[in-house]
Amino acid sequence: MALRSSWRGLINRCTARGCIGGRAGRPKRWRRQCGIPKRCTSSARAFSAADTGSPGAECEPAAHDNVFYVWGANTNVGKTVLSYAVMQAADRALFNTARLFVKPVQTGPVSEHDAPRVNGKIAPSHPDQKNNARQTICVRTLFQFENPVSPDLAAEHESRHVGDEHIIRATHNVVENWVKDCIGNKTNPFVLIEGAGGPLSPTPSGSLQADVYRHIPFPVVLVADNRLGGISSTLAAHESIRLRGFDVPFVVIFESDAGLANDGALRRHLRDSHSCVFVMPPLPKPDDSLHDWYSNHSRVHEAANELVLAMDRWNLQRHETLARAPLRAQRDLWWPFTQHRLVSSDAVTVIDSAFHNDVLTFRREERTGKGAFVPMFDAVGAWWTNGLGHGDVGLAKSIAAAAGRYGHILFPQVAHAPALELADLLLNGSGKHWASRVFFSDDGSTGIEVSLKMAFRLRSKRLGLEESPEYKIIGLQDSYHGDTLGAMNCSPSSVFNSQQTPWYTESGIFFKCPTVQMRNGEWTVEYVPAESSAGLKHHALFTSLEDILDLKGREGSELNAKYSAAIEFVLQQNRPESLGALLIEPVLQGAGGMKLIDPLFQRQLVDSCRARGIPIVFDEVFSGLWRLGCESGAILLQTHPDIATYSKLLTGGTVPLAATLASEQVFESFAGDLKAQALLHGHSYSGHVIGCAAAVHSLQQYEKMPTFDAHKRCFGAFWDEAVVRDISVSPGVRGVVAIGTVLAVELEPDSSSTGYTAKSESVQRILDHLRAHGVFSRPLGNVVYVMCAPATERAEAEVLARKVQAAVHSLSLP
Amino acid sequence: MALRSSWRGLINRCTARGCIGGRAGRPKRWRRQCGIPKRCTSSARAFSAADTGSPGAECEPAAHDNVFYVWGANTNVGKTVLSYAVMQAADRALFNTARLFVKPVQTGPVSEHDAPRVNGKIAPSHPDQKNNARQTICVRTLFQFENPVSPDLAAEHESRHVGDEHIIRATHNVVENWVKDCIGNKTNPFVLIEGAGGPLSPTPSGSLQADVYRHIPFPVVLVADNRLGGISSTLAAHESIRLRGFDVPFVVIFESDAGLANDGALRRHLRDSHSCVFVMPPLPKPDDSLHDWYSNHSRVHEAANELVLAMDRWNLQRHETLARAPLRAQRDLWWPFTQHRLVSSDAVTVIDSAFHNDVLTFRREERTGKGAFVPMFDAVGAWWTNGLGHGDVGLAKSIAAAAGRYGHILFPQVAHAPALELADLLLNGSGKHWASRVFFSDDGSTGIEVSLKMAFRLRSKRLGLEESPEYKIIGLQDSYHGDTLGAMNCSPSSVFNSQQTPWYTESGIFFKCPTVQMRNGEWTVEYVPAESSAGLKHHALFTSLEDILDLKGREGSELNAKYSAAIEFVLQQNRPESLGALLIEPVLQGAGGMKLIDPLFQRQLVDSCRARGIPIVFDEVFSGLWRLGCESGAILLQTHPDIATYSKLLTGGTVPLAATLASEQVFESFAGDLKAQALLHGHSYSGHVIGCAAAVHSLQQYEKMPTFDAHKRCFGAFWDEAVVRDISVSPGVRGVVAIGTVLAVELEPDSSSTGYTAKSESVQRILDHLRAHGVFSRPLGNVVYVMCAPATERAEAEVLARKVQAAVHSLSLP
Repeated sequence: MALRSSWRGLINRCTARGCIGGRAGRPKRWRRQCGIPKRCTSSARAFSAADTGSPGAECEPAAHDNVFYVWGANTNVGKTVLSYAVMQAADRALFNTARLFVKPVQTGPVSEHDAPRVNGKIAPSHPDQKNNARQTICVRTLFQFENPVSPDLAAEHESRHVGDEHIIRATHNVVENWVKDCIGNKTNPFVLIEGAGGPLSPTPSGSLQADVYRHIPFPVVLVADNRLGGISSTLAAHESIRLRGFDVPFVVIFESDAGLANDGALRRHLRDSHSCVFVMPPLPKPDDSLHDWYSNHSRVHEAANELVLAMDRWNLQRHETLARAPLRAQRDLWWPFTQHRLVSSDAVTVIDSAFHNDVLTFRREERTGKGAFVPMFDAVGAWWTNGLGHGDVGLAKSIAAAAGRYGHILFPQVAHAPALELADLLLNGSGKHWASRVFFSDDGSTGIEVSLKMAFRLRSKRLGLEESPEYKIIGLQDSYHGDTLGAMNCSPSSVFNSQQTPWYTESGIFFKCPTVQMRNGEWTVEYVPAESSAGLKHHALFTSLEDILDLKGREGSELNAKYSAAIEFVLQQNRPESLGALLIEPVLQGAGGMKLIDPLFQRQLVDSCRARGIPIVFDEVFSGLWRLGCESGAILLQTHPDIATYSKLLTGGTVPLAATLASEQVFESFAGDLKAQALLHGHSYSGHVIGCAAAVHSLQQYEKMPTFDAHKRCFGAFWDEAVVRDISVSPGVRGVVAIGTVLAVELEPDSSSTGYTAKSESVQRILDHLRAHGVFSRPLGNVVYVMCAPATERAEAEVLARKVQAAVHSLSLP
Repeated sequence: MALRSSWRGLINRCTARGCIGGRAGRPKRWRRQCGIPKRCTSSARAFSAADTGSPGAECEPAAHDNVFYVWGANTNVGKTVLSYAVMQAADRALFNTARLFVKPVQTGPVSEHDAPRVNGKIAPSHPDQKNNARQTICVRTLFQFENPVSPDLAAEHESRHVGDEHIIRATHNVVENWVKDCIGNKTNPFVLIEGAGGPLSPTPSGSLQADVYRHIPFPVVLVADNRLGGISSTLAAHESIRLRGFDVPFVVIFESDAGLANDGALRRHLRDSHSCVFVMPPLPKPDDSLHDWYSNHSRVHEAANELVLAMDRWNLQRHETLARAPLRAQRDLWWPFTQHRLVSSDAVTVIDSAFHNDVLTFRREERTGKGAFVPMFDAVGAWWTNGLGHGDVGLAKSIAAAAGRYGHILFPQVAHAPALELADLLLNGSGKHWASRVFFSDDGSTGIEVSLKMAFRLRSKRLGLEESPEYKIIGLQDSYHGDTLGAMNCSPSSVFNSQQTPWYTESGIFFKCPTVQMRNGEWTVEYVPAESSAGLKHHALFTSLEDILDLKGREGSELNAKYSAAIEFVLQQNRPESLGALLIEPVLQGAGGMKLIDPLFQRQLVDSCRARGIPIVFDEVFSGLWRLGCESGAILLQTHPDIATYSKLLTGGTVPLAATLASEQVFESFAGDLKAQALLHGHSYSGHVIGCAAAVHSLQQYEKMPTFDAHKRCFGAFWDEAVVRDISVSPGVRGVVAIGTVLAVELEPDSSSTGYTAKSESVQRILDHLRAHGVFSRPLGNVVYVMCAPATERAEAEVLARKVQAAVHSLSLP
């Protein structure tokens, strides 16, 4: 969303110069309670300096900033009081801090504002801030409303629109500038951002606070409710914050005057949640000044000191853990499709969290040892699965509810609501007018194996055979159907299977396909068939992709006649009884290199096979469910398969699940009096409830996107035609594919490129340029591609396209 | 847990005789708001009768009872006031109700108790309840404490222990008896169970209310907080209740005197959550009597009437949806391993929800059309995956946090905390002392294909070959490694693969194994090797399973010599260079029929293969991660593999995920300067964060179980040896396997049994007996088995074993 760019800068520059010092000791109790180990770290030296009583002694800078949210489990639980105490203590316990208190949204009269309370009473006098960095404190209220009601009502009363993006941007800017100034002043920023109301209280726009701040995911200090009922409201608030992916390292509770001791229960129930429960002395009486309360009670400032040290320590440990992650990963993990020898430790991407289209990466600068959080546009779309955006709260809630209600349920002969709802959505969506059954498996590869089992059985039934012969499939060059052996056998011999896959046998006839690209500003169809049909070679230009997709209008074309001739030529060379299925990825071959196949050719192939009684299988694992801007690739081919498998986007980008849809004829070919005649395929997690629930939520949401056209079951265009055209005419570019959520640029081969296993120099330069501009991408051979979640706004896709454009242009620079 | 038996009875008998009648009309607004369709249902006739002004007219009984929880988002939000109004309205709006109000836990002096408030002011006079069924109301407080604090503190002050199981049992009993009485009185039960405090307020034992009542999962009416901050606390409470799997069909908010209108925000944010937001007129003033408030304000009783009708209607629709589920499932789903022709609609199990070891099934009695909720022990353990129990709240929270923080993250060259933590747990757990790398895939089948790719590469490296020949594996008869082609090729030709799997080629040498069973009261090892080595046949008795597992002590035995001879005989018949891997399921073959293999034989096989340089692969998909009571099957074999795959229990029974562990030598055999030399295998959801987070939580929890022995990395015995022995001597029983969490009974073959595809008569009788006693089980050919989650208490396993015992005994009955 538009917000992304705003937090990029912030976090990008939130590298750390904080340094732990401090006058207060670190009580052992604290370390034990919070699970903080004793062993030395880089900043333990700082601790030591403090311990030996030399405050302010020069020490190694710790590699982190301290920026925390202070949220309350409810209103009126003491957020501001805590902020006051923490700000005070930060000055004493930490070394050379420059403190900033931000209240992004404030309602009620100025006399009751939190920011001046935190500031005004910070000290009896107001020392010159510029000359005394250690006393630097600044308080900022960003948006204020007169009415002491919840911000959405206040905004409504005052007829004032304050969008969530304004709040995020303003919060971002004020923190960013503060951190920047600190660099100049050589001080260590310590920033608290205080929420309004509870975590799910509305912002002025009516969104929920925690949902909005999810864009800039600082850790949360949660102030507990110490009243009757406060255990419940605190734990529930905690669960809601965690469900949104925030860290909640500290839950702080003020001792109760009413004799309640909620802290014990909170501690017990938060034991497994990585939250430390911290007790503060009772809140000041309403008439007490914060200054008196803080100054006159040694327990107050001792407790605040402890808290501040623990906050700093937690932050440091977080950075250390993230900084160690590349080495741990390289030591313990075995990544897919990765030659570990070729991966240097700085080529490991550490992901702290992710939101919408972005992943929040963590990098450590080797020279300084400092860590930095850098958000990047995830242009690989969570390996082609990101549907509703990373960390989508609706998806998280659906998944949580399914996990809490069922866990997993054995599937044979069982009915549960999420599976029934999902089947309903699929049969009335992608399967409409042709499919009658849904079979669930775990991923695209297993789904394809299920498809083959179905297709071959149907083929045998049609041929009147009791037993299936060793069928071949009809497939396409550059196809890719998954990594298990059955799926592998459906692709031509290549680096992926021949020496990789035990017992691999190329088991198909593979057509060379006409491809579609925008080349030199024109939509081009190029057909270079196999040698034997060389006379059918063809090259055609179109004014738009729409023209190419207009299969009806192209029926009588010369090209169509050539397709037909080529297809018939090959099919006639094979006994029809030896052919078990047509298996194709409709329109766009993903792993094969983002190849856009002329849909007219695929349609011809489907028709030719269907005429011979060969079952039609669509591998819609990549192309299906809005990847191409429409519900399925089949819509673009304007035909139906007998069997189709969907996966990737099915669960919105959360957990593996595949659905294979089949026509009733396919299903009936497994009917019989014996169980042995049934489809004997299944996985333990077949039809798992959590995946079904995620898929139900995702499929429902896809149809709520702004540019969704319910009639055509397509979205509006994602990519700006002018930008695509400009990229296509750039030097070094062979052609561009822009369809649905995918934008792919094929580069001219250069001397350094050797296919899949090595990157060409140009590819590497484009990747580096994109990465430098906050785009995380992976190439496919000589093809650089970006993609976005179907739930992406057009403006955001346009920004992405322009970054690709700039990266391509950079090739021409010296 | 012990609680299970208590709610079984309750829900079992909570069949429904409720009937909608009522004086108030059904406003259209309501249907629209709650998404309730207009179309007629069985009880719409009842509505019609009411609409035409003939209250009490005879009408078809609706197929449901009305039992709801009334919970507050916080304390002091008006739960009791709402209960009063709803109870009043139920009498007017519904036909012939017998109303029960239950306050399971009450704190504070009697004068302030909720139950008498609801009761005492129900009407100016107290008509004779027995003679006027329509006026029947009963209020019950089950556990009361004097101190007006949270129940856990009150219980502590009074030094009184009230366990959660007491509360559940008492609540269950009072509701059950009420429903039973209603049957006798021909009245329709309407029951409200009011909570204390918020949903996560502590019970007297200190557990959280919503966690405890999860055992009896009635739908929840949530009373919203209408104060400042109430939007946040209500939404957070709602999320916490939903995360625990409850339905929350209604959120009721009292209009605020303070001019706040929280309902708009609640309605907006609950839109996708299937909750209807209902507004009640303001709460009575503290001094107003409930009776006056209710009687004098027409808006109050109109609103209450509407709510009651909507509650009844929701309940009816829920029942109808569940009742339709079998037909929908049979129409739309394609189940794994199921001959649909053989499934009658009453053989479809409808699962409403699940908790711990139980699934809550819904059955409709065809004759009466009434629905019944029947909890059953899930003895198939969610298809062998149930680890921490269905609907485990800790798992749900872990999964929710991962979904909210990341969604899914592309895995190659990436590090994220859940994957690193999981790798760490696995390498320091099952992989300790041998494994150095973790490769993630999606399920057991894909994990086995990955294992094969690894093993064959290692084998080629050891043989000094550049290219892999067509290796065979060394495997076992009755093995089962998954349903994808590569995994299928590793099992002997059978009904599962020969005609099912495209391109299936039997690709192994398969040993016939010695099996272990308790037969006629004695632990028996029986070895009937293949014909060529018939002289090696052997039959040995042991006094205990421990003796059989004592491999060291059996080293010099005659049997061991025979094993060695048989193994060497076969291995010497094959060129070692043709053998790519040993692939075995350690100790217990699951899908093969719960066959316990003599571990001494497997150990011999491992040693013989290792001596020949053949890589050792353990398929621990079923046997691993505490299924056998210990961390892995390898522990029982007292040896290490080179490669092992884990799945099923890995995520505790939530989502598919497999981990293949490998030694550094295996990993190094993929090292090289070219990417083509790497392991080119992966799935879109490789290392998916949600699965990793679930697995981290599960693995950590397994080690916290009461009988866990950290040193041996094993649990104590699950099954009572005496019961196992008794089953084994029962007529019709061939032998019993009792190891870890599995209890399997092999029956003598009878004339009706024909292997996998048909059930013998005895098997069917045992299954029916178990089902009648609340145990949901599926056979494997002639074997009936039950299993429980590793997180099961011994007492519960004992109850289960005794049910199996009784079922087996029933075979001897006429």
